[in-house]
Amino acid sequence: MDAARPAPNGSPPPPGPHVMILGGGFGGLAAARALDGAPVSVTLVDRRNHHLFQPLLYQVATASLNASDIAEPIRKVLQRQDNAEVLLAEVGAIDVEHRTVTFTDGGELGYDYLIVAAGAAHSYVGHDEWEPYAPSLKSIEDALDVRRRVLVAFEAAEREEDPAVKAAWLAFVIVGGGPTGVELAGSLAEMARHALRGEFRHIDPARARIVLVEGLDRVLPTFPPKLSARARKDLVAMGVDVRTGLRVSSIDDNGVDLDGSRMEARTVLWAAGVRASPIGESLGAPLDRTGRVLVRPDLSLPEHPEVFVVGDLAAMEQDGKPVPGVAQAAIQGGRHAASVIRGGLEGRPAEPFRYRDKGMLAAIGRAEAVADLPHLDISGFVAWVIWVFVHIYFLIGFRNRVLVMTQWALAFVTHDRGARLITGPPATRGRWTEPRH
Amino acid sequence: MDAARPAPNGSPPPPGPHVMILGGGFGGLAAARALDGAPVSVTLVDRRNHHLFQPLLYQVATASLNASDIAEPIRKVLQRQDNAEVLLAEVGAIDVEHRTVTFTDGGELGYDYLIVAAGAAHSYVGHDEWEPYAPSLKSIEDALDVRRRVLVAFEAAEREEDPAVKAAWLAFVIVGGGPTGVELAGSLAEMARHALRGEFRHIDPARARIVLVEGLDRVLPTFPPKLSARARKDLVAMGVDVRTGLRVSSIDDNGVDLDGSRMEARTVLWAAGVRASPIGESLGAPLDRTGRVLVRPDLSLPEHPEVFVVGDLAAMEQDGKPVPGVAQAAIQGGRHAASVIRGGLEGRPAEPFRYRDKGMLAAIGRAEAVADLPHLDISGFVAWVIWVFVHIYFLIGFRNRVLVMTQWALAFVTHDRGARLITGPPATRGRWTEPRH
Repeated sequence: MDAARPAPNGSPPPPGPHVMILGGGFGGLAAARALDGAPVSVTLVDRRNHHLFQPLLYQVATASLNASDIAEPIRKVLQRQDNAEVLLAEVGAIDVEHRTVTFTDGGELGYDYLIVAAGAAHSYVGHDEWEPYAPSLKSIEDALDVRRRVLVAFEAAEREEDPAVKAAWLAFVIVGGGPTGVELAGSLAEMARHALRGEFRHIDPARARIVLVEGLDRVLPTFPPKLSARARKDLVAMGVDVRTGLRVSSIDDNGVDLDGSRMEARTVLWAAGVRASPIGESLGAPLDRTGRVLVRPDLSLPEHPEVFVVGDLAAMEQDGKPVPGVAQAAIQGGRHAASVIRGGLEGRPAEPFRYRDKGMLAAIGRAEAVADLPHLDISGFVAWVIWVFVHIYFLIGFRNRVLVMTQWALAFVTHDRGARLITGPPATRGRWTEPRH
Repeated sequence: MDAARPAPNGSPPPPGPHVMILGGGFGGLAAARALDGAPVSVTLVDRRNHHLFQPLLYQVATASLNASDIAEPIRKVLQRQDNAEVLLAEVGAIDVEHRTVTFTDGGELGYDYLIVAAGAAHSYVGHDEWEPYAPSLKSIEDALDVRRRVLVAFEAAEREEDPAVKAAWLAFVIVGGGPTGVELAGSLAEMARHALRGEFRHIDPARARIVLVEGLDRVLPTFPPKLSARARKDLVAMGVDVRTGLRVSSIDDNGVDLDGSRMEARTVLWAAGVRASPIGESLGAPLDRTGRVLVRPDLSLPEHPEVFVVGDLAAMEQDGKPVPGVAQAAIQGGRHAASVIRGGLEGRPAEPFRYRDKGMLAAIGRAEAVADLPHLDISGFVAWVIWVFVHIYFLIGFRNRVLVMTQWALAFVTHDRGARLITGPPATRGRWTEPRH
């Protein structure tokens, strides 16, 4: 198939070169929007039909929000951008020599410029066999799986008569003390202590044991030590058992081994490592240790100035430190790639990318957060208010903003979790359907 | 296991006989709530953790509402009812002689009174082989499957280059012109004509062909003919192709045969028949043709005055007409069974059940509905306002009411469908991932 595709409803094809963008996450979407009005035709390819606001995925997993509250159809985001179209397809391989992308369904499409924004997947640090026992949070399906496991664990504990097994059902281990792990642990503790209160007859959900394990010596290791200490204090106050400086040596159906010490827990959640998307491998460019593509200062490939890599898939250093794998870096990278393409069409030389750190935030519980801002570290209620507004601001879609605000307001007043639906097939570990004896 | 189960947190067991309720739908939940404060212990058993407001399921299928907006955890509904507990389990068999219920996981539980409110499943009128091609709407999973198929069909049409196949992807056949079929067809037409407008580049979603097929000579056959005619007129005005007096003779991967005439359509939805839950068979009581249990006037079984059947699973005539399988009949039946049990404990004889018809409603489109009320038939905007308030009133949960109202208000103003998420595995028919050639 040609790079020039037939245009909608018989109108003439959009002029200019064809820019293909792989991935509708923060980086890909920012690139597409930054090309609005440019003399190019844009095709954004994603295997999902929605852009996902990953920073709030833990709230879907812990039944605070609905899946669609933090997702927006990519088509809708780009609806009014005349030079853009959306293709629901999964990328199979990229042929940078012939400038074509092949899809897993056999189709292929050519490009003049390519922006690869395929993001990252979770990494089990060489122990992929742990994945079935310790799901992680990257997609909507992951979040619904985690939600199902957590809710089913309480149901199983309610029915279980053996006290040791009951305790194991009420034990939740979260591996990884970064922002996702901290937010997950805090949210789980809130749910157990408040939202589920009074609903069971044979267990007290508030006695659930929530353990947060971090290999380094403090939680939120990328934040200043003062905020790590505050986060730890807040978590402990909420009843979370915080274990730092401990590494997971094995995970199985019944629990985890932490540096040789055994912890029985039927629910283990993985919030520890990420690994770049395997799409990077087909670019033929050098990769770093975690599979990320080593890009040039303008985010293009060393041999291919027409191919850019942005977001979590790009490996880049700035002032001697790696650019972090956060939404802001992806958004800024996507915009930069778009501006290099626009500039090139006007004959301007490519400028190097510069990441501007706007700070980091992590919510810990109801009205508690830590904020590491460029010239300010804050914690507590003020940090939480900042957290709320930043997340609402960056959430895409008017409807999503209204609904998330409504649900947060309801939850703040009632302590309730509305999205407590167990759907889909029974949890894969599924012991709750076994005989009770 | 004993009928008397251990009580929560070591408190003494609740006094009185054990009432087991099978099913957390309208009938079962109404029965449980009507036993609040009675000197009995209640166990409500459901294989799902949530009560589902089925009348709005079509809005989940057509991406107007989120799954959890119309569902409420059963535990939460009964949280403050001290004499009730909830068991997440699937019923295997009922032994009315020994007064025990066995669960599919091997557990069993005795009862003194049993209220069976297991509802109905869809029926393919002897053609179960049609089910994979024509999913129906009974559970949240069904609704999400239908949503996925509908959204994927538009995506597939956008990519397809063969005009005939493109047209088949843009053809949607709904089998069954009762309230569910009418509401589904209207909602689908709205979505195609408004919500998806401008989002595709190679198709015009407004040109989707939506066909509603009904075997009898009018849609909404249980409503007065005048309202049927109005519903048809409204549907036609919205662009729905209404075909009455036509029967489906076969359904396959590519379309349907309607009395010998072929219609190519890649998406077929089933809204035609219901069949009683197979649980009725294990009661040993006589069943009617559709598998419903023939109950005595007080809703108990002929040989077992301690066993009641309520809702869609009960077959009952009143004034020469069958009591309809609607939410109101289930709610009233559940309350009646509870009152017979309460009366029996006080020595009062069982009174016969009388269904009080409160009317029927069906929404057709935006601000259009028909209402068959006891002394009044209305249609149009006023009927739609009644429809909105009745549905909000009967929806369970404060949060659900707030969120559904918010979303309806947003949708009324913007025409948007917020819940347009394709999740889960690709559609089973999945041709959209095949090669494009």
